[in-house]
Amino acid sequence: MQNFRVELKKVVDDSYDVQIGRDLIPALVCDMKEGLVGKIRKFAVVTDSNVEKDYGVPVLEALRGAGFEAEIFVFPAGEKSKVRKTKEMIEDAMLAKGFRRDCCVVAVGGGVVSDLAGFVAGTFGRGVPFVNYATTLLAAADASIGGKTAVDTELATNLIGLIYQPRKVYVDIDTWKTLPKEHLINGMAETVKHACLADRDFFEYIEDHVEDVLACVPEVCEYISGKNCNVKYQVVMKDEKEKSLREILNLGHTVGRAIETVSGYRLLHGEALSIGMAAQVNLGCRLGFLSEEERTRVIALQERIGLPVRIPDYIDREELVQKLYTDKKVRDGKLRFVFQRGIGDVMTFGEDVYARPTAEEEIREVIMEL
Amino acid sequence: MQNFRVELKKVVDDSYDVQIGRDLIPALVCDMKEGLVGKIRKFAVVTDSNVEKDYGVPVLEALRGAGFEAEIFVFPAGEKSKVRKTKEMIEDAMLAKGFRRDCCVVAVGGGVVSDLAGFVAGTFGRGVPFVNYATTLLAAADASIGGKTAVDTELATNLIGLIYQPRKVYVDIDTWKTLPKEHLINGMAETVKHACLADRDFFEYIEDHVEDVLACVPEVCEYISGKNCNVKYQVVMKDEKEKSLREILNLGHTVGRAIETVSGYRLLHGEALSIGMAAQVNLGCRLGFLSEEERTRVIALQERIGLPVRIPDYIDREELVQKLYTDKKVRDGKLRFVFQRGIGDVMTFGEDVYARPTAEEEIREVIMEL
Repeated sequence: MQNFRVELKKVVDDSYDVQIGRDLIPALVCDMKEGLVGKIRKFAVVTDSNVEKDYGVPVLEALRGAGFEAEIFVFPAGEKSKVRKTKEMIEDAMLAKGFRRDCCVVAVGGGVVSDLAGFVAGTFGRGVPFVNYATTLLAAADASIGGKTAVDTELATNLIGLIYQPRKVYVDIDTWKTLPKEHLINGMAETVKHACLADRDFFEYIEDHVEDVLACVPEVCEYISGKNCNVKYQVVMKDEKEKSLREILNLGHTVGRAIETVSGYRLLHGEALSIGMAAQVNLGCRLGFLSEEERTRVIALQERIGLPVRIPDYIDREELVQKLYTDKKVRDGKLRFVFQRGIGDVMTFGEDVYARPTAEEEIREVIMEL
Repeated sequence: MQNFRVELKKVVDDSYDVQIGRDLIPALVCDMKEGLVGKIRKFAVVTDSNVEKDYGVPVLEALRGAGFEAEIFVFPAGEKSKVRKTKEMIEDAMLAKGFRRDCCVVAVGGGVVSDLAGFVAGTFGRGVPFVNYATTLLAAADASIGGKTAVDTELATNLIGLIYQPRKVYVDIDTWKTLPKEHLINGMAETVKHACLADRDFFEYIEDHVEDVLACVPEVCEYISGKNCNVKYQVVMKDEKEKSLREILNLGHTVGRAIETVSGYRLLHGEALSIGMAAQVNLGCRLGFLSEEERTRVIALQERIGLPVRIPDYIDREELVQKLYTDKKVRDGKLRFVFQRGIGDVMTFGEDVYARPTAEEEIREVIMEL
């Protein structure tokens, strides 16, 4: 018997920048020229059918114009494309076009594109660099920090994937103008959530600037993007392993994700989250974690933005209650919820405990009334 | 315009042990009881049809016997299973059996199993722990160090995958006894390569113990496994990013991998490698990198082990020459070879340069005569 020790302790630096501004394609090309991804001269622009024309092709042409080799890989827009089959299709198309280890993936699009393209980059040639050109508020708010990539399978959402960090994220505010209004509104749900869980000033800023956001006033959009990054970054940094604190990012998601599924994805993620937030403040208010005035204020802000705060009639509420048990926070068969402590903070239930075991009856009543 | 810096510098410790010995299933179970993978109590034993009965099921039963939850996932043995479809099949079967993030993958088998199971583990729940129970000499020699996992696609070998480190590797010498003789012989090819490129004493030890290896004398097998780990570890550690030194592990592989493909995988990897080593020493001898006596000695050792050292008649030599250009060392359209400097060392061609650009004519002549 012998034992051979493999020592693999090392310092890893995955730091990167999130650049927030307008019309950032020239900035991206400039970064590539300046060696952001080393000597790589071959780029795979991965995008979806929604943004192919407006942003995918312009990124492609700007890269080619700068003398780089670049190809574009487009898949049908929508959550349904976030599956292993699409990943395989992109990989095969890249291989057929001669892509090998010495390439860089450029994701151009919203959350689905960055999840999928990041996952492709993470396993192509055992990992090639990737950068993320985010074209939606949701992608800016949600997909810029944390490095989560994944696909869905029939039996599980986001379960097959990687933690894989981009080399840089570009949040192009100008792209929001071309977003369908409902998508802009949809993206605001995560923003309100971030404000609710960590930053009361930010909440008040949103209250004061709802119309400006919806009109895509650049300074306001930039401010909001920066704040979103900051809140998420602070939380993720303190709990990279997703052991406890990171659960607070699940605020509103227990009911939110369940209703998104039960609706058969008829509800957008942000819409579902908004209803989940309403359920959360209603239950939190009953339990004395926030005041009636604060409860009303959260719901009122969501309504002003144009987000739904009631469960649609077509949802089977009993099915929804049962669906709660597929939540990843469920432990020993018990539902667990994250709650706000007023506006701008979250409840703790003991040291480093942010999710509270919650009886089915408690949340059932809230759901039946919502 | 604003810039948000995401600081992600940290110390990562992926160190692990390779335990080399006989009948290590109890050791594996004991490690799990002692918390090698934390509090995880759910295990996915991934294995192939060759070793299911002899090792897969015993590992499964030992884990269950210790009170763990465990399920077995078996795929058809052979390189042809090392594809994305098999990965998907294992993932779906795991999900159907209720596996989520809190599980550990136990690979039981040879190189194909560890490549595939490691890749499954690396992306399941964005990465769950995995341990590797190696049942072949080739897996012990090749798959224990380096953390490379991958699958093949029609257009590329080993190009979709991850660097993902196991929590522990068990090299069970006893398993070699049940290996078909050709597989044991096959595994010795990488061993001879390791000796040739880094350790003259090891080469002489193999010369002195050929019969003992083929008879699976435990002490000899243990010694060989330890030496294999050591050579590979020294090389990989000095060049984790696969920039230069690591290319020396490609000794014999330029012709070897091409002939493996051209044979339609009729040749086992080790057999193909052995022919590739013969080509390499023949060319190296012509170029004056090793003596005629050393050339003969390498080939003689391979022959004594039972490895082929000539190109089979059914191989189209012209096709083989063309296939060399798919080698990953090809740069700017030029073939590049690694060469031995005698026995136990490799040639360098400038500082940190281990692969020599080689004219097609030079290697063509060698191939035509082999």
